[in-house]
Amino acid sequence: MGKNITQKIIKAHLLGGQTVPGQEIDLRIDQTLTQDATGTMAYLQFEAIGLDRVRTDLSVSYVDHNTLQMGFRNPDDHRYLRTVAQRYGVVFSPPGTGICHQLHLENFGKPGTTLIGSDSHTPTAGGIGALAMGAGGLSVALAMAGEPYSIPMPKVVKVNLTGRLQGWAAAKDVILHLLGLLTVKGGVGKVFEYAGPGVATLTVPERATITNMGAELGATTSIFPSDAQTERFMKQMGRPQDFVELVADEDAQYDEVVDIDLSALEPLVAQPHMPDQVVPVRELAGLKIDQCAIGSCTNSSYSDLKTTALILKDKRIPVETDVLVSPGSKQVVKMLAAENLIEPLLDAGARLMECTCGPCIGMGGSPVSAGVSVRTFNRNFEGRSGTQDAKIYLASAETAARLALDGQFTDPATWGERPERVELPESVPSIRDLFLFPPEDGSDVDVVRGPNIVALERFEALPDTIEADVLLKVEDNITTDHILPAGPQITALRSNIPAISEYIFSRVDEGFVPRMKEAGKGVILGGENYGQGSSREHAALGPRHLGVKAVLVKSLARIHRANLVNFGILPLLLENPDDYDLLKQGTTLTIPARDIKPGQSVDLTTDSGHMVRAINDLTEKELEIIQSGGLLNAVRDRQSRQ
Amino acid sequence: MGKNITQKIIKAHLLGGQTVPGQEIDLRIDQTLTQDATGTMAYLQFEAIGLDRVRTDLSVSYVDHNTLQMGFRNPDDHRYLRTVAQRYGVVFSPPGTGICHQLHLENFGKPGTTLIGSDSHTPTAGGIGALAMGAGGLSVALAMAGEPYSIPMPKVVKVNLTGRLQGWAAAKDVILHLLGLLTVKGGVGKVFEYAGPGVATLTVPERATITNMGAELGATTSIFPSDAQTERFMKQMGRPQDFVELVADEDAQYDEVVDIDLSALEPLVAQPHMPDQVVPVRELAGLKIDQCAIGSCTNSSYSDLKTTALILKDKRIPVETDVLVSPGSKQVVKMLAAENLIEPLLDAGARLMECTCGPCIGMGGSPVSAGVSVRTFNRNFEGRSGTQDAKIYLASAETAARLALDGQFTDPATWGERPERVELPESVPSIRDLFLFPPEDGSDVDVVRGPNIVALERFEALPDTIEADVLLKVEDNITTDHILPAGPQITALRSNIPAISEYIFSRVDEGFVPRMKEAGKGVILGGENYGQGSSREHAALGPRHLGVKAVLVKSLARIHRANLVNFGILPLLLENPDDYDLLKQGTTLTIPARDIKPGQSVDLTTDSGHMVRAINDLTEKELEIIQSGGLLNAVRDRQSRQ
Repeated sequence: MGKNITQKIIKAHLLGGQTVPGQEIDLRIDQTLTQDATGTMAYLQFEAIGLDRVRTDLSVSYVDHNTLQMGFRNPDDHRYLRTVAQRYGVVFSPPGTGICHQLHLENFGKPGTTLIGSDSHTPTAGGIGALAMGAGGLSVALAMAGEPYSIPMPKVVKVNLTGRLQGWAAAKDVILHLLGLLTVKGGVGKVFEYAGPGVATLTVPERATITNMGAELGATTSIFPSDAQTERFMKQMGRPQDFVELVADEDAQYDEVVDIDLSALEPLVAQPHMPDQVVPVRELAGLKIDQCAIGSCTNSSYSDLKTTALILKDKRIPVETDVLVSPGSKQVVKMLAAENLIEPLLDAGARLMECTCGPCIGMGGSPVSAGVSVRTFNRNFEGRSGTQDAKIYLASAETAARLALDGQFTDPATWGERPERVELPESVPSIRDLFLFPPEDGSDVDVVRGPNIVALERFEALPDTIEADVLLKVEDNITTDHILPAGPQITALRSNIPAISEYIFSRVDEGFVPRMKEAGKGVILGGENYGQGSSREHAALGPRHLGVKAVLVKSLARIHRANLVNFGILPLLLENPDDYDLLKQGTTLTIPARDIKPGQSVDLTTDSGHMVRAINDLTEKELEIIQSGGLLNAVRDRQSRQ
Repeated sequence: MGKNITQKIIKAHLLGGQTVPGQEIDLRIDQTLTQDATGTMAYLQFEAIGLDRVRTDLSVSYVDHNTLQMGFRNPDDHRYLRTVAQRYGVVFSPPGTGICHQLHLENFGKPGTTLIGSDSHTPTAGGIGALAMGAGGLSVALAMAGEPYSIPMPKVVKVNLTGRLQGWAAAKDVILHLLGLLTVKGGVGKVFEYAGPGVATLTVPERATITNMGAELGATTSIFPSDAQTERFMKQMGRPQDFVELVADEDAQYDEVVDIDLSALEPLVAQPHMPDQVVPVRELAGLKIDQCAIGSCTNSSYSDLKTTALILKDKRIPVETDVLVSPGSKQVVKMLAAENLIEPLLDAGARLMECTCGPCIGMGGSPVSAGVSVRTFNRNFEGRSGTQDAKIYLASAETAARLALDGQFTDPATWGERPERVELPESVPSIRDLFLFPPEDGSDVDVVRGPNIVALERFEALPDTIEADVLLKVEDNITTDHILPAGPQITALRSNIPAISEYIFSRVDEGFVPRMKEAGKGVILGGENYGQGSSREHAALGPRHLGVKAVLVKSLARIHRANLVNFGILPLLLENPDDYDLLKQGTTLTIPARDIKPGQSVDLTTDSGHMVRAINDLTEKELEIIQSGGLLNAVRDRQSRQ
């Protein structure tokens, strides 16, 4: 039987498990990447494991999330990341060099490899045919230590593309269309594999936009074939040797199929406050726009920014509309500069920002109160922009730039001709000199820790019985932004668990942390899709530090579930969703924690004598980890038994 | 008797008073400028006066201090500034367009005019022969209302320049030399007027660096003649019509003379933590450098940045040294781009930041813990960088760029040839289209206020007798950064006095605000040069809001003294400095506030029965203002009497 691309890469990297959808498989990981917000913790964890050098083919540490250096903590983190990278054999990308996914695509990603990154948009590298997945920092630390990465074998969805993008429709509209169709829960446990005759019409930067934002489907990852477009891209990037062809067999099987006719797409936009609230741009005509933000790992490529510059050239954005442009990498800026495309941006009134994630993660660029912001980003969760009552719309670079000129939503039918679709030049300037490559032997490198970089505490093993109160009850679709807000003040504390824990659920309920401190232990009760959004493991580490023993929800987002397991918090699913209404803040639950067996449901009792049955989908290995008090304990235990 | 330039401009603008050094004079103000951090308050005050349009020749509102837009407050401030400017006839410069002083020099400043700005580095425009002074926001609001600006008639110091800068010495070294010579208190009550044959050798950007940092001498302002260099600059900026020649009469008299031989200067640096701690760069050879920051209103001109790019071209900065480059304006970036000078900066590893004040005011770019940072800025007060234990060194752009390549202080004798001194091209690209010019009639413009923009409270008149405790006792050289720290979190509250007052003296004594709140009133006891530094009037408004009635010090910085008067806080000087030791925190003082007469000393009594005599150098007008409860009250009172 023929194989699809996903199956081929998995087969070539399989270290254990059955490739039956839903069954856990163990994969050898070729490459890892980290960004600064999650990276400091990943390297503290790698250090705790005690190896002398990373065991991957390549590991890269990027600084792109918090580069503002507001106070000593942030630059101290950067210094720690630089020195720890040198010490253990990791490539370091200094602040301002660019956004991890854009840089990885340009410089390091390889078709057919496995890549995990401590950032939920790691699937960007699926645009060149890598099996690239977002993971918790701890998983990345373990992969750097040569440990396998375990996931449930995904279902593979064939996204069958036909036709060719027309008019102002862009790659972003492909993924927005899919999000509208399938919702933010539609991709859980699945890989979206792009196929069909339309694939060949999409360039690598376009593909990367699609695989990037596939994360918003809740998908394991998304992947494109490695074909002639990929070969051209790798040549343009100056590394033809990294190209290998990788396409699905003609008789490949898929678990599901979705058909998209590229020719039929029109400019789309995701409305507040979820990426799946998708409507055609034309339906919003007349809505005034206070801000446009162009950039982020979704749309900050040379193609996106050149298109933006061509749209803005010789035009003037109304001063009432603040336009921020954050290029994806210094390579992009160099290419724009070489083609005299910096000046058109400035002359139009746009603001050229540093090459970072920037406003996408609320790192500046907040809209005005109740403001309307059109962004080329991938998320529009409420409050993520830094302005609680702002209304964030997600669109392509073409759409954002064109709307900026109008200062309001307009019907694309009135936009006239779009500039020609951008092709990369045959060769592009290299910025490899800007990375710090590690020495062959880093054993005498001094790892420099600032006072805000706090060593990891050792968590206790799971008790035999958990007896704890529900100390927080939350609704459906709680994101990791709800659990732990982004923004510079909080992000600066990512290497200091006791300090950052003070902000857990601070935007949802300011009483939560005091209640946890008083009780010393507690349970969180949640709805559907709990923990969606970014991969930040601090959203598990913080609650664990505060004493959260279990999370009882209707359903869980994949990466957050893994983070809960990794830090020894018991994730349980309500068998009967109606029990959600029965339980309240203050309800005391008794959970027979040590008696839990793989695949067997768990009976919880409440203080009023009710019995609540929970589904337990934990594997034996996951249970062992939780019962040890987390993965770091489990790995240490295993090492000490060897 | 011949006149110097200062006397000529003062004579042409004199509305009242005697031009005898120390005597108060009233000046007609032609132009005003504001920046965002002080501007919102200035416009709230202008609105409170109740006029329909500004009465100056030109008023400009720049946004350059806090452009990060971290949360809704900051973009709401920008929106308020934009709409209030349109409403009342003020030119608006959007965030990211550039730094106020650089933009004003390029686009609006005129020789022979008077300019006041709510920023202490307004004297930058002295580089083209304007009499440009830093002032409190309220003074600027009143100037916009057509009211005269009152200052003590300054002494005029002739700075007699001979020779020509050699080797790596730069304009920055002229002012650093003067600071080393005269100290940060050396310029109080004085205008530094540059003269002599060396003047002709300095370009306008070089002159502007010198007049800019003259502020650190505590000077009223600094000024250069308007001569052939000025004429050339005005032509290059595309506004030859704004040039007028303005030179001192041959027999002009000066109060003092300082001689500087430009040929004898070498690269200098101000050491932590004061701009007057000046030593030759060579003396620090071997000291490792963690960060270089190039930019700020002192050194962000095209000349500075082109020089930087030429020094860095085809070289690589060590990754251990983080280099941030913040251009002064979009014009500068456009000129760099047109000459392909963006790429050399990026290739060397430098970070190209937005055109803002940036790290100079602690808005990002903080050094690592205990880090050494070489900056082309004008201030190196402790903690101002955002990192309390950082060590900030002030130097020229040439020195900073050259040291960046070495990653440590080195002896300029080892630096080799410096790049040719940069001349501006004959014509430069205009960015006038980026400013928002006001309509002829703004009466139907809607001024938009966000929820953080709080109307001014009306302060009470001074009581007959002040009976209050000393609630804070501080040392010499307290800066406005000590009184009210900069940084984004606090600066975002500049339009909200009750909120920002919570941070008054927070870095000095966290107990001060609680003590003030409990007592409801209090007196601050200080040493020499109290209130030096930036012009931020919030350093007076905040204490006033908290109930500070009087400031009793050994000596006062000029702008802060004016701010105290403007907001109705009584500034008194200890006649006998030894009394400072007699008084303690908690000492209750009784001050016969209503009995104070101009020029007469004031006898204060303490609760232990001691008598402390204070010098009162207040004019009749100043006393009237303080007794009314501040200038806004006084102006309103006067208007209601009319």
